[in-house]
Amino acid sequence: MIIVKIGGGDGINIEGIIEDLAGLEDPYIIVHGANALRDKLAEDLGQPKQVLTSVKGYTSVYSDEKLLDVMMMAYAGLRNKRIVELCHRHGINAVGLSGLDGKLVQGRRNKGIRVYQGKKLKIVRDFSGKPQSVNAPLLQLLLDNGYVPVLTVPIIDEQNAAINTENDDVVRVLQKALHAQMVINLIEAPGFLADKDDESSVIKDIGAAELEAREQQVEGRMKRKMLAVRKLFEHGASKVVISDGRTAHPVADAMAGKGTVIA
Amino acid sequence: MIIVKIGGGDGINIEGIIEDLAGLEDPYIIVHGANALRDKLAEDLGQPKQVLTSVKGYTSVYSDEKLLDVMMMAYAGLRNKRIVELCHRHGINAVGLSGLDGKLVQGRRNKGIRVYQGKKLKIVRDFSGKPQSVNAPLLQLLLDNGYVPVLTVPIIDEQNAAINTENDDVVRVLQKALHAQMVINLIEAPGFLADKDDESSVIKDIGAAELEAREQQVEGRMKRKMLAVRKLFEHGASKVVISDGRTAHPVADAMAGKGTVIA
Repeated sequence: MIIVKIGGGDGINIEGIIEDLAGLEDPYIIVHGANALRDKLAEDLGQPKQVLTSVKGYTSVYSDEKLLDVMMMAYAGLRNKRIVELCHRHGINAVGLSGLDGKLVQGRRNKGIRVYQGKKLKIVRDFSGKPQSVNAPLLQLLLDNGYVPVLTVPIIDEQNAAINTENDDVVRVLQKALHAQMVINLIEAPGFLADKDDESSVIKDIGAAELEAREQQVEGRMKRKMLAVRKLFEHGASKVVISDGRTAHPVADAMAGKGTVIA
Repeated sequence: MIIVKIGGGDGINIEGIIEDLAGLEDPYIIVHGANALRDKLAEDLGQPKQVLTSVKGYTSVYSDEKLLDVMMMAYAGLRNKRIVELCHRHGINAVGLSGLDGKLVQGRRNKGIRVYQGKKLKIVRDFSGKPQSVNAPLLQLLLDNGYVPVLTVPIIDEQNAAINTENDDVVRVLQKALHAQMVINLIEAPGFLADKDDESSVIKDIGAAELEAREQQVEGRMKRKMLAVRKLFEHGASKVVISDGRTAHPVADAMAGKGTVIA
């Protein structure tokens, strides 16, 4: 089982990815983002996103009810359905689902994020949280009947409310539930960069043991991504490839070991 | 099997409907609209909808690629996922799907709609069409495993492209595929009105044989709705209730025979 994570950046070559997947022999599921689309939609609707930075330095989007609405439109609506359509055009029998559907991805809502407002420490609670478990029988039911699940946020919390979460964390609980051997993470960069401003600084191989040290070297979203990768290995993944989603054949490239291979 | 169609008007009491469904003993599936939401979103995004009127007098929305995007956001995204969330809050194990997912609803794209532009006859082709068939095994798979499908547009055409269609037509193909005995159609009116401007003019009972005559008495969307109802009976429905979706308990009311009962 392979989990293919398609980043939500504007430059990702979704058509190339789906083309590649149509030729893949191993079973797989797709998890996708839509952050650039969400940000543009939020802007267009006059409600630009706000970003919170926790006291520990992790950033996240402030997810009030209105932002959840926008997410449902961008992730579970437009991006998910256009990917499903593209899959069918390439002969992939896709079924698009959010974490709400059949409680596919169940999480726990954050109690509150500790942030500084100026110099004052404040606790902000929004509709965000961490995925805890997966409705694996539903995924298995679809896979066994020849469907390819195409998953995205939001997920569902313990009170049955829709919450935002990081797709990287969704990949983590999916990997654990499905015992996926390999995770392909297609992003808007040629891999994990030693210097975030220099695309030629791709680190080819990272040992799983080095991940914690690497995490300390980076900031913002990449910091969170490295944390998510580290957790994948704690739960039994054997290979994670962080590879360029912008090339002509992103999945073929990742399978050939281009990008950063963590094993 | 009951098909519950939830209209897409602003005044529909979705929470009341879901509350009622939580207590329903018969198996059912949900089909929902989101036209008011779509129209508002299209306005907010600066691309207000255009309505075509065919030479035969049937109206439909001009569905170009951008409108399809907006539909995916409004129907398959926001409205579908919020209904699914509400279902889970009321203990209904809902799975939200568009007609694209697993090719759930397959249709044929319109060759073109004949419209008058001024006095000139013109053929306009957009991404709209008519549903032809249903992936009944996928629906049955979900139903057999305890899930309640929550369905909406768009659907998929013979070239695997997303197309817009009337949800009333989707209900028709679903009824045929699932041999549903009853269709509950919850709208923003107390039932079928003899005078469309007078809510007290509800026609309590209509014989299936009278439907064609009734269809000639009405205009616009209602004309299309009556045509869809007529086709339901051609395909074996035994009861259609057109009832008020705005009351405190719309489904309970419909089950009690309030609104227009067609049998």
